[in-house]
Amino acid sequence: MTDSTKLLGISNAIVDVLAQVDEEFLTKIGAPRGSMTLIDEARAHEIYDMMGPATEMSGGSVANTVAGFANLGGKAAYIGRVKDDQLGEIFRHDMRSLGVDVRLQPATDGSPTARCHVLIEPDGQRTMQTYLGACTELKVSDVTPETVGQPAVILLEGYVWDIAEGPALAAAAMAIAKRNGSKVALSLSDSFCVQRHRDAFHAAVQGGVDIVVADEDEVAALLQTSSHEETMAALAGYDNLFAMTRSEKGSVIVYGDEIVTQLATRVEKIVDTTGAGDAYTAGFLYGWTANMPLKECAKLGTYCATRVIQQVGGRIEPGLMDDYLAN
Amino acid sequence: MTDSTKLLGISNAIVDVLAQVDEEFLTKIGAPRGSMTLIDEARAHEIYDMMGPATEMSGGSVANTVAGFANLGGKAAYIGRVKDDQLGEIFRHDMRSLGVDVRLQPATDGSPTARCHVLIEPDGQRTMQTYLGACTELKVSDVTPETVGQPAVILLEGYVWDIAEGPALAAAAMAIAKRNGSKVALSLSDSFCVQRHRDAFHAAVQGGVDIVVADEDEVAALLQTSSHEETMAALAGYDNLFAMTRSEKGSVIVYGDEIVTQLATRVEKIVDTTGAGDAYTAGFLYGWTANMPLKECAKLGTYCATRVIQQVGGRIEPGLMDDYLAN
Repeated sequence: MTDSTKLLGISNAIVDVLAQVDEEFLTKIGAPRGSMTLIDEARAHEIYDMMGPATEMSGGSVANTVAGFANLGGKAAYIGRVKDDQLGEIFRHDMRSLGVDVRLQPATDGSPTARCHVLIEPDGQRTMQTYLGACTELKVSDVTPETVGQPAVILLEGYVWDIAEGPALAAAAMAIAKRNGSKVALSLSDSFCVQRHRDAFHAAVQGGVDIVVADEDEVAALLQTSSHEETMAALAGYDNLFAMTRSEKGSVIVYGDEIVTQLATRVEKIVDTTGAGDAYTAGFLYGWTANMPLKECAKLGTYCATRVIQQVGGRIEPGLMDDYLAN
Repeated sequence: MTDSTKLLGISNAIVDVLAQVDEEFLTKIGAPRGSMTLIDEARAHEIYDMMGPATEMSGGSVANTVAGFANLGGKAAYIGRVKDDQLGEIFRHDMRSLGVDVRLQPATDGSPTARCHVLIEPDGQRTMQTYLGACTELKVSDVTPETVGQPAVILLEGYVWDIAEGPALAAAAMAIAKRNGSKVALSLSDSFCVQRHRDAFHAAVQGGVDIVVADEDEVAALLQTSSHEETMAALAGYDNLFAMTRSEKGSVIVYGDEIVTQLATRVEKIVDTTGAGDAYTAGFLYGWTANMPLKECAKLGTYCATRVIQQVGGRIEPGLMDDYLAN
């Protein structure tokens, strides 16, 4: 089997519905600032009815990373479930238009395509209310040697473990990776997700996952540490590569004895933090799959994250690598 | 009948699909820069397949004006046809979330909700490829004394005359207005539209339309003049109020003997010209229905237009009047 794909993402395929809100709105719907809550279809309609005018664009954490990776010029592929409805068409279009090889056909039955209500406050903080819809119906039978192929890296997200067949399909992906020599990266998604699935993530990290991408809170939730120092000490016990973002404190990559710290780039105004971690991961993995030194990977990741927080939405306009090289 | 509605819009209900393009792309699809082309569903899919990643948001010329009017705090209502699909739901949501009284139920049959592919060049110039879909099935039976009510102003757009039953439903709206004492405003849409329907627009302006909102090219197409001076001279022969935008030259209102000129506000960078005229009309009509002096109406219109060209998309975030008053 030959496959020149560098990155394959397996994750929740979601269309974001972005609107500006104030803190009062979050109180009204009972959402903690910065949280991600899973909601059902009825609640999704309720929240949407209460929201102001919105803008729609493709989203989803690992899907954003795959889009960013393709935007940088990397060869990417994607497995995620949408329905054959208008939002599903939007999601697939936005992936394919970046050159991403979308490997599943849209479903003709089941729940509608997922949407995430991204509620953005004036300071750029975002709170998410997610209706997973079709995503929850992704099956272990969707992850086969044919759909996975032999990419350099398979990227999974923690949210996959929230899907009924998620743990099984993640295991299937890891088994295929092992057979084919693909590396496995895991994005920890969010710290509540880590709390829901800590044991499963631990097992994955110790048996099959090569790279962990996450923000520091998520890593701390996984390792049950309570300070940066504790986290760094705990990481010394792992062989995996950890690429860990720290918001305005920058990021740090830990890989065996190697520790690469990278400062954040100061920006004049944060517009919307949606997709900051996803963009970092795109840049990091692009560098990593191109065999760049870790310092370069960190720089490219930081550049992508810095770009995405200065705009609305989790995906950056095409031409990202040209912009990076011109910078 | 009592009705405190200030503005009722009757127009094409469209969701915009916005993407950045270069001139080469426009050449490839054979679209003149700045043009608006009506396309069928097959061509819409073709164009969409060729386009890069996009953002979706509610649009439509007069629909943008109605949204802007509501955003300023004005009581507004809307008649336009969408299907009961996801884009139709988005369109209706974005109107209702601003307090607009959406008077038609989504259609359960017929064509899908309309979409306009808005192709934005780096200098902010936008070229549109519009698939009208459900809009073309708006019927004269949708425009009744019940759905129209007794608003201060009924706003029609020239594009309505492109619909099969458009001329008849426009006539029905004007007849209801006459009976109920509502004023009728007509947006001329674009100069090609004026060329398509010049005689019909002439007849409307001379019998039923009180206010014409348009850019100068459109007015020139209507009056068949070829310079600003000729246009101004020709306008002296009309009793109607003309609120005429002139891009970077500002705007001028002509109403009988009264002529109010307003300079444009200089902006650092034009991001996207989508909705500039629509936003001007929103501000102008808000002022006019609130009995403000024409100079104030012009100022408010200019403020709205200036705002909208500094962002992507044809609709401004809620809080427009607060921002105006704070300015």
